[in-house]
Amino acid sequence: MIKKDENFEKGLNILKQIDSENYESIVDSFKDSIAPDLGTLAVSFNYGQIFSRPGLDLKSRLLATVAGLTAMGNIEQLKFYINGALNVGWTEEEIVEAMMQMIIYSGFPSGLNTILTVATEVFEDRKAKNI
Amino acid sequence: MIKKDENFEKGLNILKQIDSENYESIVDSFKDSIAPDLGTLAVSFNYGQIFSRPGLDLKSRLLATVAGLTAMGNIEQLKFYINGALNVGWTEEEIVEAMMQMIIYSGFPSGLNTILTVATEVFEDRKAKNI
Amino acid sequence: MIKKDENFEKGLNILKQIDSENYESIVDSFKDSIAPDLGTLAVSFNYGQIFSRPGLDLKSRLLATVAGLTAMGNIEQLKFYINGALNVGWTEEEIVEAMMQMIIYSGFPSGLNTILTVATEVFEDRKAKNI
Amino acid sequence: MIKKDENFEKGLNILKQIDSENYESIVDSFKDSIAPDLGTLAVSFNYGQIFSRPGLDLKSRLLATVAGLTAMGNIEQLKFYINGALNVGWTEEEIVEAMMQMIIYSGFPSGLNTILTVATEVFEDRKAKNI
Amino acid sequence: MIKKDENFEKGLNILKQIDSENYESIVDSFKDSIAPDLGTLAVSFNYGQIFSRPGLDLKSRLLATVAGLTAMGNIEQLKFYINGALNVGWTEEEIVEAMMQMIIYSGFPSGLNTILTVATEVFEDRKAKNI
Amino acid sequence: MIKKDENFEKGLNILKQIDSENYESIVDSFKDSIAPDLGTLAVSFNYGQIFSRPGLDLKSRLLATVAGLTAMGNIEQLKFYINGALNVGWTEEEIVEAMMQMIIYSGFPSGLNTILTVATEVFEDRKAKNI
Repeated sequence: MIKKDENFEKGLNILKQIDSENYESIVDSFKDSIAPDLGTLAVSFNYGQIFSRPGLDLKSRLLATVAGLTAMGNIEQLKFYINGALNVGWTEEEIVEAMMQMIIYSGFPSGLNTILTVATEVFEDRKAKNI
Repeated sequence: MIKKDENFEKGLNILKQIDSENYESIVDSFKDSIAPDLGTLAVSFNYGQIFSRPGLDLKSRLLATVAGLTAMGNIEQLKFYINGALNVGWTEEEIVEAMMQMIIYSGFPSGLNTILTVATEVFEDRKAKNI
Repeated sequence: MIKKDENFEKGLNILKQIDSENYESIVDSFKDSIAPDLGTLAVSFNYGQIFSRPGLDLKSRLLATVAGLTAMGNIEQLKFYINGALNVGWTEEEIVEAMMQMIIYSGFPSGLNTILTVATEVFEDRKAKNI
Repeated sequence: MIKKDENFEKGLNILKQIDSENYESIVDSFKDSIAPDLGTLAVSFNYGQIFSRPGLDLKSRLLATVAGLTAMGNIEQLKFYINGALNVGWTEEEIVEAMMQMIIYSGFPSGLNTILTVATEVFEDRKAKNI
Repeated sequence: MIKKDENFEKGLNILKQIDSENYESIVDSFKDSIAPDLGTLAVSFNYGQIFSRPGLDLKSRLLATVAGLTAMGNIEQLKFYINGALNVGWTEEEIVEAMMQMIIYSGFPSGLNTILTVATEVFEDRKAKNI
Repeated sequence: MIKKDENFEKGLNILKQIDSENYESIVDSFKDSIAPDLGTLAVSFNYGQIFSRPGLDLKSRLLATVAGLTAMGNIEQLKFYINGALNVGWTEEEIVEAMMQMIIYSGFPSGLNTILTVATEVFEDRKAKNI
């Protein structure tokens, strides 16, 4: 098992800003997995070494991430990041617009699938929790 | 040939804000092509009906676009949009950071290829023109 | 909300030719969604401005569409278009052959997944409805 | 080296129908390559076992192929198939329309890149040769 | 229906080495499908003409396959091949490492999704069966 | 600029094993680039934290990498890794076979393009240098 260094701590701090409610359970979910190091690497590298870099603020990074994942048609990770983008200050309308924007570059299916399923689900979850 | 309606005019106006120097030559390049309607549709739909929508400002739309194209590894269109993103107020550092962010989702090759070739070329072109 | 112009009407007319039974419920499904404009844009652009263009008949456009979505491995939209392709005159055998053809270009998995799941489901649905 | 069986002969016959002028040089180009079997397999499988199947005519198979490769953004193979599609009876306009149709599913960049570069080049080559 | 030639027999033999327990039911599953030839082609070409080639041993071919499918984010076929890779002598740790390796090239989501779902499921199935 | 920690040193050591002749110039090429940290991150993460992990030997990791990049159709990085795979003990024939194997999963074009261009170029370069 790889050790948790200062990048891991920086990463946890960013994750907390993105989703203070769920970040601990996400990190914990790797513990008993077949690849515990994968969780440590994801926190240290993705959040501790990329997301935490100066030069672009967290809010902009989350918009870029939602756009990139929509363009790639990646449904699994989008839910977490759409929720995170709303947590750091983007409105639902802004998120939908950024996702619609991707239709130009990756076609209608990627936009339709992600907006009508993932984004809709995140918005409804938050409404149910009065966020 | 399809007609140029009000969406086309709205699209031209957005294109002018993205790249006042080159937008006319880009639009004109379709005129004698094998698909002249493709240029009209691109201006009307992409810029007149998507980019011009309220709900997300132009600056954010350009960040989302640079992120999405980097994630898709799309090199051909990136040059235009990186230049446009700089024109509407993003700094070179912010653009590089948004592109590096995509490494998490689409891997190192897409980031390396686009940053070290396309972004570098745009930055040098602008330096040569004292923009 | 964007307005429904003549392209929207042209689009509805094409959709009716592709799937007279279901097109209204598909269009209506966007109404109460988080992105009502997305449905209007999809009808106006995809069907009103692309599918309705002269120069290639509707039957050929549907074959091209089934081929393209199979090559991309896009499962969500294929069901609608395979059904549409059968509605405008392609046989089940022709559809399966066009999809098998894509194996050359995008590999066995994309063909296997789409033929054995989506196409099979469409064919069985139609048999159950005696279409 | 694998042997050339009856599927190889069937494949050569199909290739001849697609491009009677160039098919021999294409097949020969594999002979001194680092993977001579790859050429034999491509002829036997792609043309001898897929393209030659009954159930869908050659003309429709070429439209499906041009559509699929455009959707995938595959530039290298498109040139051969666009030329082949014209050889078996599709018009330039029909090819451009089938490629534009893919914009709906895979976005503007894939259509723009392939139409304005590959298709344009094929059309000009044929004009220069008076085909 | 295409005939089952010597390549088909060679293919069956390879499939038996990859998964002696399940290969017959996999091949049989195509029999009553809408594309029975697809199963015959898959066995003859994939296993009889590619997997059975000299020049690279079966064990290495299975590692290459697991890596390739992980990089492509292809979830449907991975389960069969991860199980096969374990059958021919790779350890669970080696498989997880090969999949993690792909994160560099295709990003974290493809690795996370396939390791935490598909590989985990295969490992648990085998544990339940005392393999 | 991020600092070069022990992972960077471990990464350099792996890079040296993959390509002792060129690794220094590759690392140096980032120094004056618009993204100097990208080179440091690539060495530390890709080579220092992934390639150097126990559980799968370097030779197997390079086969997995060549397979994955071929499946993705990634041409830019393949040259480096094919050369590296030959350096650590794979034969030219084994590399070609692993790449041909990917045809099953990602189609003929990805295999044809990468084998006939990139692999061929690497093999010829080495022959010219008497490696």
